[in-house]
This record gives sequence, structure tokens and C-alpha cells, in this order.
Amino acid sequence: MARPRRTEHNREVILAKGIDLLCEQGYNGTGLKQILDAVQIPKGSFYHYFDSKEAYAAQVVELYIDRLLEVFDNYLLYTTETPVDIIKQIYGWMVVEFKRKECREGCLLGNLAAELGASSSLCQVAMSSAYGKWFQRFVPIVVAGQEAGQIRQDVTAELLAETFWNAWEGSLLRMKVTGSTATVEQTLAVLLDSLFRA
Amino acid sequence: MARPRRTEHNREVILAKGIDLLCEQGYNGTGLKQILDAVQIPKGSFYHYFDSKEAYAAQVVELYIDRLLEVFDNYLLYTTETPVDIIKQIYGWMVVEFKRKECREGCLLGNLAAELGASSSLCQVAMSSAYGKWFQRFVPIVVAGQEAGQIRQDVTAELLAETFWNAWEGSLLRMKVTGSTATVEQTLAVLLDSLFRA
Repeated sequence: MARPRRTEHNREVILAKGIDLLCEQGYNGTGLKQILDAVQIPKGSFYHYFDSKEAYAAQVVELYIDRLLEVFDNYLLYTTETPVDIIKQIYGWMVVEFKRKECREGCLLGNLAAELGASSSLCQVAMSSAYGKWFQRFVPIVVAGQEAGQIRQDVTAELLAETFWNAWEGSLLRMKVTGSTATVEQTLAVLLDSLFRA
Repeated sequence: MARPRRTEHNREVILAKGIDLLCEQGYNGTGLKQILDAVQIPKGSFYHYFDSKEAYAAQVVELYIDRLLEVFDNYLLYTTETPVDIIKQIYGWMVVEFKRKECREGCLLGNLAAELGASSSLCQVAMSSAYGKWFQRFVPIVVAGQEAGQIRQDVTAELLAETFWNAWEGSLLRMKVTGSTATVEQTLAVLLDSLFRA
């Protein structure tokens, strides 16, 4: 396989750094200079890779969800767990990641939705697409749980998925304020053991 | 009653304007000059009223939750509705407000948690206090619902309240991205009709 061109390599490095910085500091709180300094790419070369800071943020969103869903997909490929246990495993793993980052980052999609949701149409499109990709992965797990009699059937899989996403994202906001994953773990337990339970 | 001093009046006007601006544009996206211009108070007088922009944001959070909970309290004083219907009324009223503001603002507490949750200790304290005030109002309503046999008793009122808050806040993030209250209304229905139901 051909080695990726230097331009493409730099582009990905700048995007990857944006995941951490935008997660923790937000869009307006993160300067382009800070991003480029962090990855040691010459100042002033940003617009060589991206049309605008807004376009950059939209591409960071895309990389973020694709990396996250790669974990989902790899896990789904080999697991023999029940649907509810699959969700517990994946989201339990994310809780470990949040703790490792000292509860400072949360979810990029939630953070940018709060900050830019209503003001950047480029980011709105990227965030809606990211949500759609997640939804496509998550709903079939819920459906499998319903078919196995593990998850309630009187609420549609789509509505359960939507509520799950919202409660999860909201719990990550509380995590950033409290500096603890307690509410994330408690909410996950209520969702799976009480809302989802057949 | 003595007329409030001009200084105190100006302080409140600047804080009230901050609710809208910070909700819609975020903390870093809102300049002090923009706030002062909007309320027609001379530029440069900001630090006469507030120690810092961060201290200002913390006080905006306080005013925001106090105004919101005043609506809660006034409603609770006179209503004869059941606990679940009280929640439906209050949150249904908020949905109307979000629509009126074209889904652009969402909740100040969620927005600032996402943007500043892990980086401003002043705002963290203000947000934790605001959550605490809400929690104190909401839990007794859930307890009343449990005692009346209207709300499930196998999950504590505290955990139901926490999950409710998180799902509500998360749904407001989606609202900002989609420009629609559909997910807010659907999530509210799932919480009350399925998660809370006895």
C-alpha cells in the first residue's frame, strides 16, 4: 500500500489533536495556533489543510464518531454477549476512558452541540450525521434485545435509543461539572436495568 | 419600599441579558462589549459591577436558576394536579418557550457545563448549586408520585430525578442541532410514561 502523502498525514494529525482540545476547551476556547503548536506543524499552514475553523470542527466531529464507532464495530464482530451486556460493556469502557481523562472532556458531540448547535450549519450537518451513524449501530442492538425478550417491547427501539443517547449525553454534562463519573454510571444503570428491562 | 439603587439595577440588567446571550452563543462566543452594547450601558463599566467575566457568568447562572425555579414554585403553590401531571405541565411550558426562541438557546446550565464545566471552578460551584436547587424541588414531586402509586417505587426518587435531568439536558443538545423540539417531547414522554410509570 502506498504511504499516505505528507499533506494527508498532517491533516489527520491536526484533526486528531482537535478531538482532545475541542472536547476540553470548546470551539471558541481553542485557538488555531494552540492546535498547530500542539502538533508542531508550522503556524499559518492551517488554511492549507482546511477552508475555515468551522470546516475544521466539522471534520473533527467526523473523525471523532468514526473512531468511536470503530470500537463499537470491532466489539460487535466478535462478542457473544447478550444485547444488554453488549451495551454495558461498550459504555462501561467509555466510563473508564472518561475517568482516565479525569472527567474533563466528555463527549465532543454534546459539547459542540451546546456551544455551536444553533449557530454553525456546517457543524450541525456533521453532528446530525454523527448521531445518525450511532443510531444505525445502536437500534439493531436494542431490536435484538427486544426479540430475545431482554428489552421491553412496548416502547420502540428507536425511542429507547433516542432516550438513551439523551440521558447519556446529559450525564456527561454533569460529569464535567462534578468531576466524577458517578452520575454517568448511575444513569446507565437506571436506563438498562429499569427503562430498558422487559 | 426604597427604589433600588442605580448600580443594583444596572447589575441586574446586565445579568439578565447574559442569560440569552450566553445560552445562544456560549461563554467564549459572547464578548463583554456585546453584552454592554445590548443593554446600552457604557462600555468599560463592566468591571464596576463584576470582578471578572467568569464571576459574571457564575452570577448569570444563579439568576437563571432562580427565575426558572420561581415558575416552579408559583405553579406548585396553587396546582391541584397529580405529580406526573405537574411535571408534564412545567416541562410542557418549557417546550413552548424553547419553540418561541426557535430552539436556539437550550438550557444555560447544560450549555455552560459543556463549555466550561471542567475549566471554571467559579462556574462549577454555581452550576452545582443550581442543580441542587432544582433537585430540592423535583425530588419531593417524585416522592409524592411514588406515595400516590403513580410513580414506580423500585427506583429511588433521587435516581429518577437525576436520570430525568440528564435525559432532559441531553435532549436539549439534540434540539439545538436539529432545530426541533421533537426529541425533547419524545424523551419527556418516554421518561414519564415508561421510566417513571408505576
